[in-house]
Amino acid sequence: MQQVLINGQWRDASSSSSFQAHNPATCEALPDEYPVSDWDDCDAALSAADSAATILASFPSSRIADFLDKYAENIEQHAESIVNLAHLETALAVSPRLADIELPRTTGQLRQAAAAAREGSWAMATIDTASGIRSMYGPIGPVTVFGPNNFPLAFGSISGGDFAAAVAAGNPVIAKANSSHPGTTRLLAEQAQLAAEETGMPAGTVQLIYRTSHADGERLVADPRNGATAYTGSRSAGLTLKAAADAAGKPIYLELSSVNPMILLPGALEERSEDIAEELAGSCLMGTGQFCTNPGLVVTVAGEKTSQFIDDLTARFSQAPVGTLLSAGVQKSLGQSLATLLEAGGELLVGNSEGGGEGYSFANTLVQITADQFIADPETMQTEAFGNASLLVIADDIDQVCSLLEELEGNLTGCIYSHTQGQDDPDYDRVAPRLRSRVGRLLNDKMPTGVAVSPAMNHGGPYPATGHPGFTAVGIPASLVRFAMLQSYDNIRPHRLPPALQDENPGQACWRNIDGQWTQADIS
Amino acid sequence: MQQVLINGQWRDASSSSSFQAHNPATCEALPDEYPVSDWDDCDAALSAADSAATILASFPSSRIADFLDKYAENIEQHAESIVNLAHLETALAVSPRLADIELPRTTGQLRQAAAAAREGSWAMATIDTASGIRSMYGPIGPVTVFGPNNFPLAFGSISGGDFAAAVAAGNPVIAKANSSHPGTTRLLAEQAQLAAEETGMPAGTVQLIYRTSHADGERLVADPRNGATAYTGSRSAGLTLKAAADAAGKPIYLELSSVNPMILLPGALEERSEDIAEELAGSCLMGTGQFCTNPGLVVTVAGEKTSQFIDDLTARFSQAPVGTLLSAGVQKSLGQSLATLLEAGGELLVGNSEGGGEGYSFANTLVQITADQFIADPETMQTEAFGNASLLVIADDIDQVCSLLEELEGNLTGCIYSHTQGQDDPDYDRVAPRLRSRVGRLLNDKMPTGVAVSPAMNHGGPYPATGHPGFTAVGIPASLVRFAMLQSYDNIRPHRLPPALQDENPGQACWRNIDGQWTQADIS
Repeated sequence: MQQVLINGQWRDASSSSSFQAHNPATCEALPDEYPVSDWDDCDAALSAADSAATILASFPSSRIADFLDKYAENIEQHAESIVNLAHLETALAVSPRLADIELPRTTGQLRQAAAAAREGSWAMATIDTASGIRSMYGPIGPVTVFGPNNFPLAFGSISGGDFAAAVAAGNPVIAKANSSHPGTTRLLAEQAQLAAEETGMPAGTVQLIYRTSHADGERLVADPRNGATAYTGSRSAGLTLKAAADAAGKPIYLELSSVNPMILLPGALEERSEDIAEELAGSCLMGTGQFCTNPGLVVTVAGEKTSQFIDDLTARFSQAPVGTLLSAGVQKSLGQSLATLLEAGGELLVGNSEGGGEGYSFANTLVQITADQFIADPETMQTEAFGNASLLVIADDIDQVCSLLEELEGNLTGCIYSHTQGQDDPDYDRVAPRLRSRVGRLLNDKMPTGVAVSPAMNHGGPYPATGHPGFTAVGIPASLVRFAMLQSYDNIRPHRLPPALQDENPGQACWRNIDGQWTQADIS
Repeated sequence: MQQVLINGQWRDASSSSSFQAHNPATCEALPDEYPVSDWDDCDAALSAADSAATILASFPSSRIADFLDKYAENIEQHAESIVNLAHLETALAVSPRLADIELPRTTGQLRQAAAAAREGSWAMATIDTASGIRSMYGPIGPVTVFGPNNFPLAFGSISGGDFAAAVAAGNPVIAKANSSHPGTTRLLAEQAQLAAEETGMPAGTVQLIYRTSHADGERLVADPRNGATAYTGSRSAGLTLKAAADAAGKPIYLELSSVNPMILLPGALEERSEDIAEELAGSCLMGTGQFCTNPGLVVTVAGEKTSQFIDDLTARFSQAPVGTLLSAGVQKSLGQSLATLLEAGGELLVGNSEGGGEGYSFANTLVQITADQFIADPETMQTEAFGNASLLVIADDIDQVCSLLEELEGNLTGCIYSHTQGQDDPDYDRVAPRLRSRVGRLLNDKMPTGVAVSPAMNHGGPYPATGHPGFTAVGIPASLVRFAMLQSYDNIRPHRLPPALQDENPGQACWRNIDGQWTQADIS
């Protein structure tokens, strides 16, 4: 039985049951046994994190940055074993995915977070010299992270964007491994803990449990010692945690679901139908469609070109190899979601059968409906079919596209493809405002599946895509603010102020807002 | 029966019952009747606000700024009638309170919000030139505002800080009047609506209803057309709205309760006991103690000086005139809260009887407990006694003060008084970190009752003071962010970007973060 990491020690879990991960490519259980922790483990982790939080709050941010940098270095030194186990547990390719895309993204995020912590501008130091009031963001307290199944490294609970942001903001992390890749998470936690020791972090800075009961999970996020929670995963489990955290007044940041609407305006299909079909098929089927930003809802306007486009896209879905899904659960859920869409009147264009690829798999699937059907039952028609499947909607005209958009729930992304020479511009001007208010990231002529780690990224959006439309889970430094509280200092004696709020700006690197002007200068 | 303001029209409410406000100084009902709106009014207001939101989103922010400026001007032109009715409805003095402090604060906030909207830096435009991704805060949608009883103008639902911030961020507001001052709110709404017409705002930009059933209030904040809610008031009503909004994934910003802990370190009392007693009595009894930041929990360390201080403070409470409370409800609730503290073992030093002042009133009251008592039952001992009453806690030593602080719930403010020559500094260093993480604003040697409208203010704090520790209800531009969603633009054609994200920075006034540097320059 594998051990949990609590208060700086790998130790036997307090547990009465266990689970194993499966190799999605063979559908067989992997050998390691992982404990389902009971409340004693959660309680011990919370206490250790609470103590660590107090110590971390007294550290200069450069020490926390050193830890993140060291951790990135350790991951690189153990890249091969981490990637190999991640491949076994997820069936994601070693190359061109885990080794050469996801692992460098992961270490890149850790280093960007380190740089943000060291530089300090993320904390938005605000100084009002006339009133003697100064404010900045400070750590919110221990952060519990529930990672998703689809990015074992870059969104992993002890290595991904939430982890990096929470630590860079000065908080310890309690990581809850995703049950589909507990071994990968354990290997990463080993390197995190070694880095924490090497850089003198307090014992409970990084902790790992593998699984809890649902009741203990709810208790964990609502515990007074927990500062905030980050969750990426299924909507139902996320909403259960959200209810528990909300009732306790604890911030919880969720990434729940998104169908990522894409509007293909008529001129774009007139102009470059084949290119768009190729791009779209690639985006829909990449990673067997298991991206949060996978285009799951494609809206077109009826016409001859549209019919050709759909035939083309259908052929591409039919001809593309069928990838492996992450788990039996993903395979089952995909079938169920498609059944919901088909029972509601969707027309099957291609696919909808289990298997066809190695291990857990499901045929590349396209379902088509009319905009009338969508508008008549928008909730059902926005069922997320997570995986290699998309829903095509045919509208009569742009008026109907606009009506459809009024029924759209919150999404992470929304894309509009339009004619490059401007002939779609009047339609664009009608469609874009309606889409804008319903998505976190609006795109033109570009597929949404790439989520750049950019300061201007928003990997977030209105409910039910996330729990609050003001925050992003990707992008540094913006993602750090989720794990911070606003701290105002009123008439505080100068030597007692945190370094970033003193008159002298240490190193002149940190941007501060002084009397309404952003500057890196000292207060003279 | 007074009319509600919906979709730009004053019209009869859809209502089956009504209420009257009372003059707190006479305990008698005021003549006007106000409707309790039923769902039809809420529904109509939501639809109008939804339409207005779409139009406002297309306006340049300078037009919205013009509205706020015009409204401030209108309020000033009608100051006398507004202040006189506010005085009748709240018994707050015309001078030195309503006319010369609160009304100028109100118009000042509206003008600061206008300036923030016009300048645009609040939206945190962030441009990543390498990736082609740009982001900024955009309007969140219609904002429903529930204002408190204690600031009819400066926190009023159609005139206060929440209103100003919501509108400056580009959103229409549905104001729900506080039932203790519906007439004041009506007079303000008249001026808001006239200003909206004079500056060409869409019809549903400002709307007013007076009261709804609890069920309709919950439905209102959870409605898909509502973007966000701001609530200031009692904890129980606030938590009911929070549960409804949370379940619908709608942001809600709450200001619920706060005992505003104050730590008086031994050296401070050695040095300037009388001065502190005078300051503290003034802060506790100002406005009959009816401030969100009223010092309700005063922690001292046992000693001879402390005993003298408490005698002094008790005498001041005893000798000070007894003010008028805002309502029968405040009077009743104050008595109940004090009964809770006394039944839990508090020792009454002075007060605890109804009356003693004009109209609704309650004797200036001090209750004393030991830190042992606090630590044994921290939840009860943090019962907020809203009004002219405070709880004194005597600790054995600083160790016990630290233990007490570990039991402290979230608060808006926390103050530490210490010796000016540094002899309390070792104690300060132990106390301050524990207090820091539990309060929104930390003060030194200053009472918390003044809440400056400063960009560095935090009128917020961890739950249960508010619903999220990352946001402030006072301070411009920080308070605007509550009513915004993060909007990222990825590969958007340049002419389609909002003005603040285009290469050219209009007017070179707006601060933007370009490739990690804050600047007012264009992109060259």
